[in-house]
Amino acid sequence: MTDSFRAIPDQAFGFKPIVRIRDIDAVVHNYLLFKNKAEKTNSICAAVLKAEVHGLQMIDVAPALYNVGARYFFVAELYEAISLREILPQKDAQIYTLAGILINEEQYFKEYNIIPCVNCLEQLSRWNKFCRDNGKGSVIIHLDTHMNRLGLLDDEIEILSNNYNEYLSDLEVHFYMSHFYDIKGNDFTNCHKQIEILKNYLAKLPKAPITFACTDSVILLDNQQVNFDMIRPGIGLVGGAPNAAHPISPEAKHTIEIYAKISQIKKIPKGQTVGYGGAFVTKRDTKMALVHIGYKDGYLRTLSELDSDPKGVYMCIDGYRTPVMGKISLDASTIDVTDVPADVLANAKYAEVVGPNVDLKVLADKAGCYEILVALGRENKKVNDYTVKEFKRISG
Amino acid sequence: MTDSFRAIPDQAFGFKPIVRIRDIDAVVHNYLLFKNKAEKTNSICAAVLKAEVHGLQMIDVAPALYNVGARYFFVAELYEAISLREILPQKDAQIYTLAGILINEEQYFKEYNIIPCVNCLEQLSRWNKFCRDNGKGSVIIHLDTHMNRLGLLDDEIEILSNNYNEYLSDLEVHFYMSHFYDIKGNDFTNCHKQIEILKNYLAKLPKAPITFACTDSVILLDNQQVNFDMIRPGIGLVGGAPNAAHPISPEAKHTIEIYAKISQIKKIPKGQTVGYGGAFVTKRDTKMALVHIGYKDGYLRTLSELDSDPKGVYMCIDGYRTPVMGKISLDASTIDVTDVPADVLANAKYAEVVGPNVDLKVLADKAGCYEILVALGRENKKVNDYTVKEFKRISG
Repeated sequence: MTDSFRAIPDQAFGFKPIVRIRDIDAVVHNYLLFKNKAEKTNSICAAVLKAEVHGLQMIDVAPALYNVGARYFFVAELYEAISLREILPQKDAQIYTLAGILINEEQYFKEYNIIPCVNCLEQLSRWNKFCRDNGKGSVIIHLDTHMNRLGLLDDEIEILSNNYNEYLSDLEVHFYMSHFYDIKGNDFTNCHKQIEILKNYLAKLPKAPITFACTDSVILLDNQQVNFDMIRPGIGLVGGAPNAAHPISPEAKHTIEIYAKISQIKKIPKGQTVGYGGAFVTKRDTKMALVHIGYKDGYLRTLSELDSDPKGVYMCIDGYRTPVMGKISLDASTIDVTDVPADVLANAKYAEVVGPNVDLKVLADKAGCYEILVALGRENKKVNDYTVKEFKRISG
Repeated sequence: MTDSFRAIPDQAFGFKPIVRIRDIDAVVHNYLLFKNKAEKTNSICAAVLKAEVHGLQMIDVAPALYNVGARYFFVAELYEAISLREILPQKDAQIYTLAGILINEEQYFKEYNIIPCVNCLEQLSRWNKFCRDNGKGSVIIHLDTHMNRLGLLDDEIEILSNNYNEYLSDLEVHFYMSHFYDIKGNDFTNCHKQIEILKNYLAKLPKAPITFACTDSVILLDNQQVNFDMIRPGIGLVGGAPNAAHPISPEAKHTIEIYAKISQIKKIPKGQTVGYGGAFVTKRDTKMALVHIGYKDGYLRTLSELDSDPKGVYMCIDGYRTPVMGKISLDASTIDVTDVPADVLANAKYAEVVGPNVDLKVLADKAGCYEILVALGRENKKVNDYTVKEFKRISG
């Protein structure tokens, strides 16, 4: 067995066909890479933990990051923030909700000591009023630098600048924030336009700290220009990056491994179609295996290998790449195991779906975004879920 | 408020932004539509409950179907079958696993009285041997009519036909089964080819009952030809169909509704880009709302509205269609609410994502398959999940 192909004992599978292993130390390692970039510009390094840290699980990740000094945490919604506060009751752990503060949520923000990133004047006004009646509070104001998604646009910033003391009578502004929207490619013109828009906004508002850069922008843009007072890595903590060619650093670690059982190896002659819609034709006499993971389990349908849209997605068996063939089914996928030597195949019980030999970043590139990671990382009764430590215990 | 737009009281949301309502009676209603089609050919009507009945939940659906006479149930994997057996301990409830029987699973099949659909001779041989040592058992044999996915192909069927008594010394064959692979379009040539292949296979094997047709084939093909001894509706039970134009019958009911909170309504001038990648440009002065559901929550990224790939996906607010704009984000989506009258919008707190005004079948067509349903239907801490009965109780 090649060194990088992990041995999974039968007892780790039990009667479920999938094993997932989460490497929390690797998340911490990746956080520290970002922290190093932040320190070079005297910026804070926050941690964005939404979507259960893209499947790595807040309950394991959040305390580990707190222990290495992280104090600023972002999630999307209130329900996530409440979970996180229960994990991190420490007073110096700041918890922010990117999705804002919805109607009737004010008392929860107060009770759990959560700070909203307000996205419009209505939210700001409502939160300020609540804090006037219930004790002073804090806020991040999201400025929409023409991504046209979350945050205040020109018209609302104009109103805010003219009525600042009224809107913020009972609130302390922790940060102004914004977000880059066009960073996957090689042309960063729109990023620089956004920085200009931000500067125009800031000129109209009283001074407060600023946070702009997330994983992709921290990796791809000039840190001196974009780090400002705090960076907010998210997908980068779990080993994600703008694309497979641009990791945080060569030292970034993969954090999640997924293995699925294989069964039913059979021979298909050259020229036959495989799977639904007959959308894939065998290019040679082919040995196929069934892998017990499908789109229900987060192995997205968009990873399908169709002759009309070849993606080149593969799994691994020992040291051998085994390409996906045809459409991903609900519960299963089919792979080409022709190139796996007969003696290796005879002993093979499972394939590596994501891990050291199947780079998550490559899958994310092929799927178009990190939907694959939240999909594979979510709660699933079909999965045996272990941290590396738990896995080592069960493996003896 | 229009009749078909459901009123969701604040307490049904609590501090979570999504409400999901599952209509179990509607699933039963749809099952009976299939049962009616089955009875016309004296066929059994089975029920395929895999992926937690595509999100409708076995714990609620399985007993309801048993109560109206269903006795034959299919799931994909052993872990699902064990859950189902715990829900349906009745001896006359037959439970089959489509994914076969993997190594070391034999004792679970015996203990929980589950019957495998074996997909290769290795599985058949192993299960027969186990039953020789531990008491007679049952089996379905999956014949692969050149879908080239699950089941025995020509070579293995040849071996089986020459050694039938040996492979099946301690097993009763409940059914031979197969599966159509090319049924979404209008040309059913491949289906008829598959029926011919099946007939050739059967000519080589001792007689046993046959099951071939699933939801799509039951709806689209000639029941006299494809129903055989048992039909196996799955997605059709929850209101799915080959495409939006072909439901089971005009009486088929939708079974799932999803509502998500909206916030932060704002104005974007004509000609601006919206969201990640700047992939959507506003065609007019536009009023936007943020909807608190994203691809993390099963609202698949493939539903995004890009100028390069317009899908035309929409949500609904009261009686008004509100088109999706730009890329779906992890936690949120943006919709165009320009056409919602100001007085309606002022009171609007949520949008219908799926339901009587946003047909699941249309979304499945746009997403390419029912991945959308398992994605939206899975366990999710962001969701308040109710059956219709539970929802009525909480709504007072």
